[in-house]
This record gives sequence, structure tokens and C-alpha cells, in this order.
Amino acid sequence: MIEPTGQLRLHIQNPADEKIFLITDAIWQAAANRHPEVAKRLVVSNGRTEAEFHAAIGSADLLISWTGVVRALFPTNAPKLKIIFCTSAGLDRLAPFDLLPPGCALLNNSGVHGPKAGEWGLMAILMLANHMPLFATQQRERRYEKHFSRVVAGQSLLALGVGDMAGHTLDYARRLGMKVIGVRNRVATHPHCDEVVGLAQLDAVLPRADYLLITCPLTPQTRGLLDRRRLALLKPSAGLINMARGAIVDQDALCDQLDRGALGGAVLDVFTTEPLPPDSRVWTTRNLVMAPHVSSDDPESYNPRSLDIFFRNFGMWLDGKPMPNMIDVKTGY
Amino acid sequence: MIEPTGQLRLHIQNPADEKIFLITDAIWQAAANRHPEVAKRLVVSNGRTEAEFHAAIGSADLLISWTGVVRALFPTNAPKLKIIFCTSAGLDRLAPFDLLPPGCALLNNSGVHGPKAGEWGLMAILMLANHMPLFATQQRERRYEKHFSRVVAGQSLLALGVGDMAGHTLDYARRLGMKVIGVRNRVATHPHCDEVVGLAQLDAVLPRADYLLITCPLTPQTRGLLDRRRLALLKPSAGLINMARGAIVDQDALCDQLDRGALGGAVLDVFTTEPLPPDSRVWTTRNLVMAPHVSSDDPESYNPRSLDIFFRNFGMWLDGKPMPNMIDVKTGY
Repeated sequence: MIEPTGQLRLHIQNPADEKIFLITDAIWQAAANRHPEVAKRLVVSNGRTEAEFHAAIGSADLLISWTGVVRALFPTNAPKLKIIFCTSAGLDRLAPFDLLPPGCALLNNSGVHGPKAGEWGLMAILMLANHMPLFATQQRERRYEKHFSRVVAGQSLLALGVGDMAGHTLDYARRLGMKVIGVRNRVATHPHCDEVVGLAQLDAVLPRADYLLITCPLTPQTRGLLDRRRLALLKPSAGLINMARGAIVDQDALCDQLDRGALGGAVLDVFTTEPLPPDSRVWTTRNLVMAPHVSSDDPESYNPRSLDIFFRNFGMWLDGKPMPNMIDVKTGY
Repeated sequence: MIEPTGQLRLHIQNPADEKIFLITDAIWQAAANRHPEVAKRLVVSNGRTEAEFHAAIGSADLLISWTGVVRALFPTNAPKLKIIFCTSAGLDRLAPFDLLPPGCALLNNSGVHGPKAGEWGLMAILMLANHMPLFATQQRERRYEKHFSRVVAGQSLLALGVGDMAGHTLDYARRLGMKVIGVRNRVATHPHCDEVVGLAQLDAVLPRADYLLITCPLTPQTRGLLDRRRLALLKPSAGLINMARGAIVDQDALCDQLDRGALGGAVLDVFTTEPLPPDSRVWTTRNLVMAPHVSSDDPESYNPRSLDIFFRNFGMWLDGKPMPNMIDVKTGY
């Protein structure tokens, strides 16, 4: 048990080579000022080097860091560590989570990405609706050929994953008159879905999608989920958007389908290997537009929003309540 | 004067080679059924060949056609013609309007393009906000290099033209928290603009734009308006969207600026020459994404919406009221 007024040691470990998304002392202090009652329970250190990490981790009660840093520096001797908060939503890089000290809670920053990812997902739907991946291919070929399109109202958006990453996009899509079908692990209603089905019904709903939006976590269950057989269940006119993890989709099967015109188009932010290797066929696949894994990360708001989520969870932990961002290591999200 | 119950002859002339946007008898009849009181005043013929045109135009009171057809078949002997309704918003191809019978009213279909153009404009803003033109260039170069971006809230959209083409985009932009500055010929407030300035203030507002959305008509006043000097007034990070007419922008100056990184990006649907010639530098200009003049035309709704606008105007004319879609041949819009 923690003494109700005792202080706990928090270490923040930034990656040594990071330039854009650093949790600086100024960003930390601004967040602490937004949560004074919780922040006053913490004594904070902030490091970037391995030496700084090892100097702090032995006595740390809490750690805020990046999945890549945790992956590189654990296991380690951290006998007091109770909470690791990672500034990522997808913690698949840490699976199967056996690096972590036993009994230590692992938290993601789900809730950070909504607004930025929402605009990106909306953009990707509208790009597919307006044949922009096809026109990108035509531009490379110096081919001027009209293809008209209609407004998105009445078209179907199938959302594989209906969490924070997808939420704003689904809301925008509904406001434009689209029909939204959500696929989630456990069936439940969702405020921005017309219909929600379980993962077991995926094959039944894939043929209904005009657009497939993938934002689900990468877990043993979702790895390779969109395999060649399931991709073939999509309409030839359907568009695919992947903002989650490349390994959820059989990338080679997707490229095959696009290259032979068996799919309307794809807008991809993630790939099976990142950075995408120079010899990858993805670069030149027809009707495929790509971004370098940037869809959901807004440098201005990323760490402030992450720290707000950390403080909210830490405050609940201090009150003995369950933490909403705690990962279930059995399911991986 | 028209007798209050007399019938008038309407001729519809489709282009001989058109396949997608034909005004068929079925589309006409469905529209007539939506406007029975006005439609019953019309006796209608529908042609595609020159012979059909000449057989009908001599006795026609009204003509519904395309700017290209009118351009090709006028002047002609049409002594009874009172109204020409063109199924385009921009009638610049008919300028200086001296082909038309004296006293004949010329109408455009402004009001048709809003919903489709609105989604396209929103898409283009989000593409520029998310560096998609840059990533298209990187994709062509097999270069994987991250560039992050923030949400559009708080950013400035400068709208050159605030008519039907822009309206929905401005509404969406405002709902995403953008600041909208409208530029129009006559200063007036606008429901989706935070601020409206006259064309004479253009130079003063160009440096404030994060995005410049061009939807104004091509007139002697707007031809070449975005010349090299004015393009240089834009921020180096600004994005340019042209959904209006290519000749409003100095295309060569725009390509120069993009190629040397002096502008954030461009999303273009229109060009100084269309179809874009195979040897145009536009195809390979850096950070430039293009579409083949399709941004605003939804094949499903285009003619139904056009005919609704025709019926609304014709009904007002029967009542002796001014027609809202009538072009002022002095200004060209």
C-alpha cells in the first residue's frame, strides 16, 4: 500500500536519438500544473542515456517511456516499479510482455490519437471516394483520364477496430451520411456505428464495405487477419485504409489485388517492414497511396495529451481504482 | 408576354459523344415529376445530332445544353429563344457572350456542385495538412521520410470565391475549427466565413493563408490573378487548391515555386490546357497532386440537381421574377 501522502519516484526516459516527440521538462511541468493534486505525489527524473536510465530505474515506482526504449532496456532490475506508461497506443512491440517486472502494470496512451487520426481517416476515405490513388498512378504514367465519383452519403464504411483511433473518423463519416459498420472483439453498441458485429462475423461483412478502415491493435488474433482469402471478399471497387499495423494485412496479397485492378484503391500509413525498404513493391503498386507512419501523431498535442492520460490513470491508481489504459497482457491491448 | 397557360417549346441538346452525363428522357421525366406545375407548361424535344438541333432550335423558346455545344452550334437562327440553361457553373467558354441571340437570358447551374465539391475541397485541405503531396513525391522517389503535422484547428483557409462551389468546404473547415477568410468581388458577410474581404484586399490576405482554395469564376478580372508576384506572397508552408479554372493561376510560376520548395504543396483539378498534355511539367512537379477535372461533378446527382435548378428559375421567369442563375454577361458570372 502507498501512504496517502507519501511521494513516489517517476522516471521519464526519452529515446537518445529523438528530436520531435521529446517529453521535455517544460512539457512535463505544464502537464503537472494541469493536475496539481496528483503531480505533487511525484518526484521526477528525466533521462535520455542508458546511464541515466540505470541510475534511476532501481528506485523508480513509475516509468514513462517509449515502447522501443522499454524493448531495448528491459528486463532490468526494477524492484519497486509498479506502473510503466508507454507513449504509444499499440504496444505490440512489447508482446508477449515477458520483459516486464512481474506485477507491474503496463499502460498505453490510447486517447491521444483521436483528433489527428480522425482527420487522417476522413482524408483517406475522401481520397478513395474521389479516386485519388488511381489519379496518383495516372500522374506517374502521364495519363489524363477522367473517372467521376459520387458523394460518400449512403456508402458503407467498415471499421475494423472502433477505439480511440477510429472514433473521430466514424463520427465524421456519419455526419457525411455514410453507413458505419463496426467490427470489434466483443459485440457492443458504439455511438458512431449503425451496426456493430463481432470479429467472428468479419467474413460476412467484408463484402458490404465500400471502405475498410483498419485501426485495431496488432495481436496474435489480428496478425494476418486480412489474408488473401479475406481481401478477396471485398468488392472490386472497395478502398482499404490501414492506420494500425502493417502485419494485420497480407501486404503482398493486397499489392497483387491492386496491381490487377481487383480492388478500388488503398491508402496506407503502415507496412510490414518500416521504414519501407527501397526495393519494396509497395512504392509502385497501382492505386496505392502511402504515408510514412505519421497518420495519428500530432507533435504539438501528442505529449501534452499523453501526460494528461497518464495523470488521469495515476490518479485512479492512487484512489485504488482500475486504470482505464492498463493493457491486458493476455489479449495485448 | 407569355400567356399564363400557354405552352413553350424546350429543346434539350446533349453532346453527340457524351456517355456519362447525358440528360436522358428518364432523368428529364423524373425531374418534371418533381416540378409538375412548371413542367406542364413545356413541350420537350431531346436531341444529340446537329440535325436534331437545327430541326428544333428555330421554334424553341428554351434550350438546355452544354457550354461546348452552345459554343459549337451558335450563332444560329433561333428567333424565339428566350432562355439558354447551361449545365455548367463556369460559362467562361462562352465569353464574351456575343454568340447568343440578343435579349436571350443565359443561365448557369450554380447550386449543383456544392455537396460534391465540398467533399473534394475538404479532402484537398486535409491532404495538404497531412503532407500527402510531399509523400506522393517521396513515393515516386522511393524515399521514406517522416513529416508530422498537426490538426487543422486554428489554421487559416483563404477562399478565393465563396459561392456554391466553396460553400460546403468552408462549412466543413469551420466545423474542424479552421479560420475562414473569404475573398469576393463585393464585400459582404458570409455564413461560413469569419471574415470577408474584397478582391482589392487580396494581396493583404494572401500572406495569412495556410490554405488557398480557388473556386471563383474565370473572368477577365480573375484571369492570371494568381500571378508570380501574388503566389510569392503566400507562406512557404501554404497549400494551394484550384478547383475553378487553370487560367486563374500562373501555372508555370506555381510549378517553379513548388519545385524549389517555396510552397507547401498543391492539389489541382484544373490546368491551363486540358487534357493536360503529356509533355507538361505539371506531371512531375514536386509536391503537386492532380486530378483530371472531376472534383465537382457527381454523375448520380448532376443532372437531377441541374434540372431542379432549371425548373426553379423557369418558374420564377413565368412569374415575372428575376432568375437567380442568370449570368450577367458584363461580369461573366
